[in-house]
Parts: sequence; structure tokens; C-alpha cells
Amino acid sequence: MSEETRDLVIAGSGVAGLSAAVYAARADFDPLVLEGDEPGGQLTLTTDVENYLGFPDGVGGMELIQRGKEQAEKFGAEFKHGSIEWADLDERPFKLSLSTGETLETQTLIVATGASARWVGADGEDELMGYGLSTCATCDGAFHRGDNVLVVGGGDSAMEEALFLAKFADSVTVVHRREELRASEIMADRARDHDAIEFRWNTELRSLHGSQEEGVTGATLISHADGHPKQRAENGIEVETETVDVGGVFYAVGHTPNTQFLEDTGVELDEDGYVRLQTDDDGRPTSETTVEGVFAAGDVADSRYQQAVTAAGTGSMAALDAEEYLETLERGQPKTVEASA
Amino acid sequence: MSEETRDLVIAGSGVAGLSAAVYAARADFDPLVLEGDEPGGQLTLTTDVENYLGFPDGVGGMELIQRGKEQAEKFGAEFKHGSIEWADLDERPFKLSLSTGETLETQTLIVATGASARWVGADGEDELMGYGLSTCATCDGAFHRGDNVLVVGGGDSAMEEALFLAKFADSVTVVHRREELRASEIMADRARDHDAIEFRWNTELRSLHGSQEEGVTGATLISHADGHPKQRAENGIEVETETVDVGGVFYAVGHTPNTQFLEDTGVELDEDGYVRLQTDDDGRPTSETTVEGVFAAGDVADSRYQQAVTAAGTGSMAALDAEEYLETLERGQPKTVEASA
Repeated sequence: MSEETRDLVIAGSGVAGLSAAVYAARADFDPLVLEGDEPGGQLTLTTDVENYLGFPDGVGGMELIQRGKEQAEKFGAEFKHGSIEWADLDERPFKLSLSTGETLETQTLIVATGASARWVGADGEDELMGYGLSTCATCDGAFHRGDNVLVVGGGDSAMEEALFLAKFADSVTVVHRREELRASEIMADRARDHDAIEFRWNTELRSLHGSQEEGVTGATLISHADGHPKQRAENGIEVETETVDVGGVFYAVGHTPNTQFLEDTGVELDEDGYVRLQTDDDGRPTSETTVEGVFAAGDVADSRYQQAVTAAGTGSMAALDAEEYLETLERGQPKTVEASA
Repeated sequence: MSEETRDLVIAGSGVAGLSAAVYAARADFDPLVLEGDEPGGQLTLTTDVENYLGFPDGVGGMELIQRGKEQAEKFGAEFKHGSIEWADLDERPFKLSLSTGETLETQTLIVATGASARWVGADGEDELMGYGLSTCATCDGAFHRGDNVLVVGGGDSAMEEALFLAKFADSVTVVHRREELRASEIMADRARDHDAIEFRWNTELRSLHGSQEEGVTGATLISHADGHPKQRAENGIEVETETVDVGGVFYAVGHTPNTQFLEDTGVELDEDGYVRLQTDDDGRPTSETTVEGVFAAGDVADSRYQQAVTAAGTGSMAALDAEEYLETLERGQPKTVEASA
């Protein structure tokens, strides 16, 4: 049973979704924002944001989200619980099935569902995420001047995070479950050549120590000479255990874009599942996907930068593109929806 | 006489330059920001900004700029008066001649020099810009619910502004100096078909009335049956004069990107003078120009959106790209600078 047909649905309530909502609501397009499985998105996992322009004393991640939501609601954006489980984007109005069991119809859709950083499953990570445990060195590295820190991961992004952290931290230890890196040769060499960066091979993070008041104070590592110690420990094989004093831990084991509901639609995704955006006739970046009337903003379409301020910027772009498209529709020039993927 | 060689110079101190400075300074790259001819950029011409995410009660344009500058300075960004008059970008370090007579050398350059909205030269515009006179309907249209407003211009962007303003204003009058629009047929038709939009052909704006306290209250228009009344009046030909009551005036006579100093470099510009940005190997947008080590951010590379929050986003992208490039240089893998334009 379809409830209603909207002009604009925004999927996701992180920075990108909120910025799109502010623009669209202020332009009287009555957007409906689906809050998603993690209302507020990745920023809610960050305590202090120092690099979002406009806050010289920093702003809490949750506070920035709340301020953005208040701003969007002030202009009339409507918020609703739930995420999209299934989408029919073959013809307009698009049909959306929500996790709440409801269905919705909409003329346009902005996908701002984000990318979730993967966690490793260590004890204490729920409590300490944002309090010394982080998934973003660019965001939080500057808080660790003089600390010893761990980076968990073995790919290019782990090397990048380690190199970036080495500018601030006294020592950076890369913890990797195998004895070979997945990173490219050049990135691996750069990390290996750096005096402040060490490697702990065949090692995994079992638990984090500390509290929200004092932050991360230490970590328990397990290792096994043949790698994958966690898996071995679960199978009853003995592993070595060591507790180290560290002031910060960074997870760099990848992000997963939240695009499962787009897999059988015409919206083209790249090999990692991120939405591919189109350029316009002059080669300029847009928020357009391969389905007309479907736009994307924020981390879900950006595997390269993934910053709060870039997500806010692309949210605004998506709203402006959706507005222009809706105005074309209203004036009786509906374009055929073509799924070109 | 060259003063010093910097790692990173950021040309421009509007939103894009400040966001780049916050990122680069926080990452310890000691950026030098050249403030340019209009320190703070276009936002300093706006009184209230309601659509920059994070400020539910709005923020003054000048206040947002001051907050951003304070934030960048807090992390160690250095600011310097002057703009780039001439740049040698053929080899690194790049050489810059400033309007102050000084020269500078730098390994990388972020161009964030913006695009200046053109003004029409009416009496009172200096005083009233930002106080009822605006160059951005998307930014300021929502302040004119129930007003009668003028739009000055005859191209596509004037039609877009008029259509957008018609959502809020009681009436929108497009003032155009000829009796034919420069706009595309489709945009012109949309504006002509709209009940709330009227046209004043062969008409120009001579002066604005009002004050910073009460805003724009009226405008004096001149017209001549054969068009271009201002030019005729200057040549002593008699023109008709009329004063109208309006609550807002919007200039839509185009923007000029501040890229004169790039014209003889390898940095590719589009036909309107905006910097062309490159996509990466995966087709994702970047801040890279056609000269390695030169990046661009904000309105100077964006003729499509030109919003404060998009400029802040691309400023952050440029800083991250410049940081990555500098790290490549530091690690002894200098790439040859190729001017591919």
C-alpha cells in the first residue's frame, strides 16, 4: 500500500542528507528525509570536529548533526525513521520499500546513505569509538600529538593513516593480521621507510582499555606466527597475548558504502559499491547518477575524500540538481527515465 | 628578489581558501594565504547566510568569514595582503609575482581566487549590496517572501533567478536593456509563461533607494524604445525615467572568474575563464588542474553551483590533494611538471 507521492526523498540523515534537506526545504520543495539505520551518520561517532569551516573552537560531531537537523526542520524538512530496503527506479514516480514496512513514491531521490567504516570487533570498541578510537586519521590525528598510537589494517588507507599520524604521534604501530601488506608497493615502502612507524605482523586487536573520561589508554594484542590469530584462538589454538600502552587506536580496515538497495537498479556503482556520479556537458562534476531523477551526495559517492565539509558541499549540489530537475518536470517536460547501467 | 620558498600557497581568502587553509594548517603544512583584492570573497557581500549547514539561526557572511579565518590562524595558517599578478608555473618551485611588488616561490599552489559577480554600476549599489541588493537568488531569495523584486539581466541565469524568486516574491520584474533575451528558448519560455514574472524591455537600473537599516525600498529605471538607455543617456539622448517600489533587487549579469594571472600558464581554463578540474583514474572529481602541483577550489573552478558550502567542501579537497602531492615530493619522487594545456 503506497502512502503518498513525494517530490523529493532524501535517504540518509548525515551531513550530506542534512545539507541537501536545508537547501531543498528552504527552496520550498518539502523534502522527506529518511533517517537510515545510523541517524546522523558517521559524524555521530566523532567527539570533536576541528576542520569543519566556521567553528574556530571546534564543534562536537553530534552537536553539528543536531544543529543541521534543527536548521533543516526550521525550513520545513520532514524526518522519518527507517531506511530503504528495496527501490524500483525504472519509472517515475520511483517506488521505495522501507525497513519500517511502509512504501513511498517519489519523483526524485537523493541518495545520501553514506559509507560505514568497518570495525574489527575488539572488546570495548562500542564504548571508546570517538574517545581515542577513531576511523579517520585526517579528522582525529591532530588530537594525538606526542602519543603512541596503533593503526589496524594493511591496505593503502592504513599506510596513509600511519604516515599522516606519524606527523603528530611519537610512534605509530601498524597492526596487521598477516605478515604481508595488501597496500601498494609504493605506499608500503613509504610507511616502512618512516622512522616513527613500526609493524606488528600476524597480530590482531583483541580489546581496548580506557574510558570515555580518560580516552584510550591501552590495547591487548594477540598474535600467532602463522597469522590470523583471532581465527586460530576461536579454534582453540594458543596465541600470544600482549598489552601495550597507547593513547589512540585508528581502524583502517575499509568502508562499506550503503548501496545494497541500489544493486538491482539502473544506478551504476563502482567496483567497491560506491555510486558513480556523472559530469555535465561541460565536464563539470554533478550529483547526477545514471538514473535521471536520482542524485547522490556525501560519502556514498565519494571514496576519495569522505570529509564532513565535502559531504555538506555535495549535499547542497544534489539539492540544487534535484530542484532543477523537478522544475523541468513541473513545466511539462518530463524526460524519459533511462536506466543506462 | 625572491623572499622565500613555501610548500603551499593558497591564493584567495574566501570560503574555499579558508577551508583549504584550515585543513592544510591542521596537517602542519604551514600554508600561506594570499588575501586577494577582496579579502573574504563574495560572502562578505551577504548579510545573512541561512543555508550553510551548522547554523540553524543563520550566520552573517562576514561573521562566517571571520570565524573561518580565526580557525585557520589557530592551526597556524599565515595570511598576507596581495594577489597574484603573474605566475610562472612551468617548473617547480612555482614563481609568483604579487600585487604588493613582492615575489614568492612555492612547491604547490591552491587557486581559490573566486568569481566576482558583475555589478551594473547603479547609484547606491555600494551601500545596499547585501542589504536588499544581492547577486544570488538561491542565497537571498527566501528573505523576500511577499516582496516585489527586480532581476537585472537577460541570460539563462537571470531567468533561473527570476523563476526561483517567483516562489517567494509577490512579483518579479526582469529588467533587460534590450528587447530580446540572451537566454535559451526553453528558459525564456519558462519565465515568460510564469504568472508572477513580468518583463521591462529596453530598460536599465539607474539607482537604488533605501538604506542599510531599512533595506532596498525602490529603484529608478530608465528606458528607451531602441534599447541600451544608459548608453543613450550618456550621449545626451532623452530617456524615460520611472521610480518603482521594490523590496529587493537581484543582479544576474554574470560572474567573472578571477583567473587573469593563469592565462599564460599551463592551467587550462574553460571558455568562460573558469579553471577546468581533472578527474582521477577512477573518474572521480578532484581538485587537480592541468598543471601538477596546482589545485583549484571554490567558485573559480565552479560555474555551476557557486555556494558557500560547496566552496568549503572543495577547499578541503584541494588541501588534501596538495598534502598528498607534497608527501610524494618529500619522499623523493618528484614528478615532472607538465603543462598539458
